[in-house]
Amino acid sequence: MKINKYENISQIEREAKKDFIDRHSAFIHCESNAKKGEKFKVNVKIGDQYQHPDDPDHFISWIQLWSGEKMLAQANFTEGAQGNIPGNLEVDFYIIPQKNLKLIAQSFCTKHGLWQSDEAMVEVKL
Amino acid sequence: MKINKYENISQIEREAKKDFIDRHSAFIHCESNAKKGEKFKVNVKIGDQYQHPDDPDHFISWIQLWSGEKMLAQANFTEGAQGNIPGNLEVDFYIIPQKNLKLIAQSFCTKHGLWQSDEAMVEVKL
Amino acid sequence: MKINKYENISQIEREAKKDFIDRHSAFIHCESNAKKGEKFKVNVKIGDQYQHPDDPDHFISWIQLWSGEKMLAQANFTEGAQGNIPGNLEVDFYIIPQKNLKLIAQSFCTKHGLWQSDEAMVEVKL
Amino acid sequence: MKINKYENISQIEREAKKDFIDRHSAFIHCESNAKKGEKFKVNVKIGDQYQHPDDPDHFISWIQLWSGEKMLAQANFTEGAQGNIPGNLEVDFYIIPQKNLKLIAQSFCTKHGLWQSDEAMVEVKL
Repeated sequence: MKINKYENISQIEREAKKDFIDRHSAFIHCESNAKKGEKFKVNVKIGDQYQHPDDPDHFISWIQLWSGEKMLAQANFTEGAQGNIPGNLEVDFYIIPQKNLKLIAQSFCTKHGLWQSDEAMVEVKL
Repeated sequence: MKINKYENISQIEREAKKDFIDRHSAFIHCESNAKKGEKFKVNVKIGDQYQHPDDPDHFISWIQLWSGEKMLAQANFTEGAQGNIPGNLEVDFYIIPQKNLKLIAQSFCTKHGLWQSDEAMVEVKL
Repeated sequence: MKINKYENISQIEREAKKDFIDRHSAFIHCESNAKKGEKFKVNVKIGDQYQHPDDPDHFISWIQLWSGEKMLAQANFTEGAQGNIPGNLEVDFYIIPQKNLKLIAQSFCTKHGLWQSDEAMVEVKL
Repeated sequence: MKINKYENISQIEREAKKDFIDRHSAFIHCESNAKKGEKFKVNVKIGDQYQHPDDPDHFISWIQLWSGEKMLAQANFTEGAQGNIPGNLEVDFYIIPQKNLKLIAQSFCTKHGLWQSDEAMVEVKL
């Protein structure tokens, strides 16, 4: 099974390819430090500079958030929840870390398969 | 199948019952007005004045967000993502409304079943 | 939130209404007796005499199986997994009962909302 | 993110390792030929010669079935649905193929992460 991984699009020349990679990629937005046992917000947003459609036959249907080998949460979306217009799907997960996090997000496009974010390391201290 | 619905706990006398109802209930936090075709944040938080455990055999395993008859999104959680300590599980969904919303959230506790929030009406204008 | 419940369609006159109710309803097919601690198959099938489309903007996107207040399992489907032709979506869940079951299935149509099956009681003995 | 892949356990010497690999691996059981546009059963079973626990803090919480880059279905399980005893979790998905299938199953253990089956090729003919 193919897992598409994020590539730095500034290194890519062809506009269509930049768009394709960027609009499918999951980006993790969070602080790089967290307090042990306290609520910590992790935003996962699909796409950075480009937008993905929300068409019935072509949309992002789920996002998973992992830390290391453990899946923390999965959000499933129904087509149309993004208004059937192109945009950047996002969700905020709130977790309570007890140790350092090694976050990875995956997202599934109903037409273009599975995409994996870069890793985000979070140092967790008392 | 029983759907537990939120009751105003200020009307309830017994402390244990207040706690039981409050800690399981889904609360929707969002603006009461939204702009058509623009991103709109909906926070769903479980419990208001009381906290729910995150034990392996007793935790909130999912939250669904509905508008009328349409489910917009569902977030599933793995036990331990809330640090195995009591707290108020929450998630922010971002949707793009095209018409008025009639939001309802449901949550599932692995020990105490299905709980439904009050309805939150959102007026959507250009 | 409206939960549509199965009605005996033989009591319904209008063909379109028979079709609408039948094709959305979840039917539980299983034995009425099970052995404690042994694997037990529960088939959930959507529709009995009528078929439901599998169109991008109109399909059955999930089925949940409950016993009393406990959700046992949920199956999510991607549009197109049913070949984009009308049919009767189904799934076999295998569970291991330790006590009597009071099974209920729910299904979600992306266009016509939530539907709930009749209850299926299963006596569980050593 | 680590994806554990099935290894032929007959090549492995250490009993604990055989058990660990086998009991987590997803096995796809289905015919190798299917008819285009007709219902086709795909059984996914976790473990072949060894069994996995169904403990609150250690169980298989979901199975995904993919064909190539498309996820067809995902089944989520609540702890306890397998009776809290060791066993071989399974589910039958029914799909309607329109072209050849390249099936892969993934399963997630709440303690030992993500596991991927071998590929099962299915020839689909009229």
